[in-house]
Amino acid sequence: MIQEQSGRGPRIRAVRITPIAIQDPPLLNAAGLHAPFALRTVVELETEDGVIGISEIPGNEATNQALEEASRLVIGKDLYQLNKLQKELEAYFGKDSVTDRGDAPWDQRKLVHVFSALEVACLDCIGKLVNRPVVDLLGGRMRDSVPFAAYLFFKYEGAGGDWGFSKDPGARGWDAARQEAAVDPQGIVNQAIAMCKEYGFQSIKLKGGAFEPELEVACMQALYREFGPAMPLRFDPNAIWKPETGLKYGKVMEPILEYLEDPVRGQENMAWLRGQIKTPLATNMCTTSFDEIPSSIRLGSEDIILSDHHFWGGLRASMELSRVCNVFGRDLSMHSNSHLGISLAAMVHLGAALPQLRYALDTHYPWQSEEIITGGRLAFDNGAVHVPSGPGLGVELDRDSLQTLHQNYLKCGLKKRDDQVEMQKVHPDWTFQKIRW
Amino acid sequence: MIQEQSGRGPRIRAVRITPIAIQDPPLLNAAGLHAPFALRTVVELETEDGVIGISEIPGNEATNQALEEASRLVIGKDLYQLNKLQKELEAYFGKDSVTDRGDAPWDQRKLVHVFSALEVACLDCIGKLVNRPVVDLLGGRMRDSVPFAAYLFFKYEGAGGDWGFSKDPGARGWDAARQEAAVDPQGIVNQAIAMCKEYGFQSIKLKGGAFEPELEVACMQALYREFGPAMPLRFDPNAIWKPETGLKYGKVMEPILEYLEDPVRGQENMAWLRGQIKTPLATNMCTTSFDEIPSSIRLGSEDIILSDHHFWGGLRASMELSRVCNVFGRDLSMHSNSHLGISLAAMVHLGAALPQLRYALDTHYPWQSEEIITGGRLAFDNGAVHVPSGPGLGVELDRDSLQTLHQNYLKCGLKKRDDQVEMQKVHPDWTFQKIRW
Ligand SMILES: [Mg+2]
Ligand SMILES: [Mg+2]
Repeated sequence: MIQEQSGRGPRIRAVRITPIAIQDPPLLNAAGLHAPFALRTVVELETEDGVIGISEIPGNEATNQALEEASRLVIGKDLYQLNKLQKELEAYFGKDSVTDRGDAPWDQRKLVHVFSALEVACLDCIGKLVNRPVVDLLGGRMRDSVPFAAYLFFKYEGAGGDWGFSKDPGARGWDAARQEAAVDPQGIVNQAIAMCKEYGFQSIKLKGGAFEPELEVACMQALYREFGPAMPLRFDPNAIWKPETGLKYGKVMEPILEYLEDPVRGQENMAWLRGQIKTPLATNMCTTSFDEIPSSIRLGSEDIILSDHHFWGGLRASMELSRVCNVFGRDLSMHSNSHLGISLAAMVHLGAALPQLRYALDTHYPWQSEEIITGGRLAFDNGAVHVPSGPGLGVELDRDSLQTLHQNYLKCGLKKRDDQVEMQKVHPDWTFQKIRW
Repeated sequence: MIQEQSGRGPRIRAVRITPIAIQDPPLLNAAGLHAPFALRTVVELETEDGVIGISEIPGNEATNQALEEASRLVIGKDLYQLNKLQKELEAYFGKDSVTDRGDAPWDQRKLVHVFSALEVACLDCIGKLVNRPVVDLLGGRMRDSVPFAAYLFFKYEGAGGDWGFSKDPGARGWDAARQEAAVDPQGIVNQAIAMCKEYGFQSIKLKGGAFEPELEVACMQALYREFGPAMPLRFDPNAIWKPETGLKYGKVMEPILEYLEDPVRGQENMAWLRGQIKTPLATNMCTTSFDEIPSSIRLGSEDIILSDHHFWGGLRASMELSRVCNVFGRDLSMHSNSHLGISLAAMVHLGAALPQLRYALDTHYPWQSEEIITGGRLAFDNGAVHVPSGPGLGVELDRDSLQTLHQNYLKCGLKKRDDQVEMQKVHPDWTFQKIRW
């Protein structure tokens, strides 16, 4: 889709929205199973003088449709007028009600996604126009590189990318390990060793909620035995536990966890559990928008908010969230979905600007093998990513790769993420339960 | 004071700190009497390529000394690295404890003043470098002009500027009216009529706390009779009232006030009174820093925070405060001290960027007659100031005027604001009381 209009100054002349599908392994989580492709959407803004700013967000048909509508509001606008654009989008889309994230594989609120997509692309453009990295548009860098955590998953065999979860029999190292099944402690430990060896991660997170608590907790204990007390460990059962289960296993894991992520569902249950165990609680489920901050503060539902600029309305909003967290004694770290290098670059610029950053960020990046930026995939140095040195986000679109992945989108036929449907292809009787154990 | 060092890129080469004294009329308030001169400090940052950014903050010897120390941390630094500069200043000065504002005519926290001075000057520089107004560095303009309120004071006769509160017998209009005494309802009404005629203000605030409540409330009632219900009225006794006085006169003024500002002292008393009367409560005294936000939210101490970028740590911090206010259902407006056009321009850029702005801002500007910017004093259009159109703050330093007002500073001998000492020159037995009535 292309929309154009003439104007003066560094105004937006065109918006291009390109849905893509990227290979994604059969990762398990509380909502089901990752499909062989994850959907992302790439947004390009082009100014009248031909500068192009880019961004990447979680993709689905509804978001893409909303982006197409939003782009009509954007054409002819000055890149810098982000406050007003936000208001115009609020007026157009309405302030969508907060979706209970447990019902959906990811947040469905259109407004924050759309604004985030446009804001990041505008900031990329502005950075290119003034020859400054995006981090400098957020107040400048507190650090030159941003630490990430190994993000482990229970998974079935295969690497995604076709409907048979194909494996490459010639793969070596992490490329081989990421194709292996991991459904028990030894599988998870093997996955962690290979991923940490390849990327140098200094923290480890296991996504749980796929199997009964005893097995998943045993995996955490196996990781602790393997890596020792110097390696920070996190565990995230995606709020699928009953409060008593959270208490029982929260206590069991108290000596070995850096933080426990969404053990139970909802701010009230989180607040209750937080009063019972010493381990800090993190969330990307019970406090997912500014609207939920007042009750979070009143109840005391978490220690760490795992924000996500795609879900919280962009990079500047994330800086504001950082201030909110600082004022109320919360820490801020970051959530991730399956993503490519444009999202990673945006996360790194934001992570570099955050005044406080105590916890390594989440990223699914090792699970992906494709890229849409020139120069190939971004490098990790001891688990950290250096702030790209170029202006704007510091990454450029590889148009051939973009077209390839857009063709994948057209071919794969997926229109939105539905992990339950994928799981039912393997286990026909499986259904999603908000609280299972 | 000049500090210099060489470097590359748009780095800071020099910091110039110039204390000035500006004529100030004998205005009365709960802390005493304005001296014939108000102290301000003008900060200039010069980059290696000769771009100069400016700012203006409340002046006193301690702040000037702190600025001189801070400038040593700034020389050679990149203009964009504001997050790191903030941390370096925190490390250098310590996070000063919150000063009870009732003890001091204005907030004495060094860190926020110093950072605000440097940040605004950096943003002015950046704006000039990228040819954009400062409002665009704050996310762009929500409005093209920013409304201010008439700020009335009880006062003695004279216009300040020498030690005898001289009057110009040839003055006409507001210039004449601002020299008149105003110590009763008719005097306040006359002041309001003249000020509103000159500036076109659409809201009126009376600074109280100088006389017994009955007289001051009678002045508000006189204003209401004169201007009618369409003119929003505010009253600010600077927290000098007992809770029962706040309740009594809060009830009396309920039908005529837009908001009641700091009727009582401290967040607890404010929260109590807020539960008793319908009029929204505003403050620039009980919630004056991010550190005080959690208790403000817990207690519910005000409806409107009157922020001040000089006191809250700059323009970006004020945008973050705006988000905090929005999240917790507060409104945000602005406090002022006696000031000139650089501060006014900064307030206007911030005011234009604020996503929500429901209340006209405070300004002392009509009480000043001097200026240090080229082109003379900024104009008001129906009580509002248009966002200056040039890059950065859009105002330039008039070096002759700056030198004249610096000479005033040297000649007047004042080192800090002390309204009690000034009052005692008129009423030797007068002493400041935090709670008087
Ligand atoms: Mg999570
Ligand atoms: Mg006040």
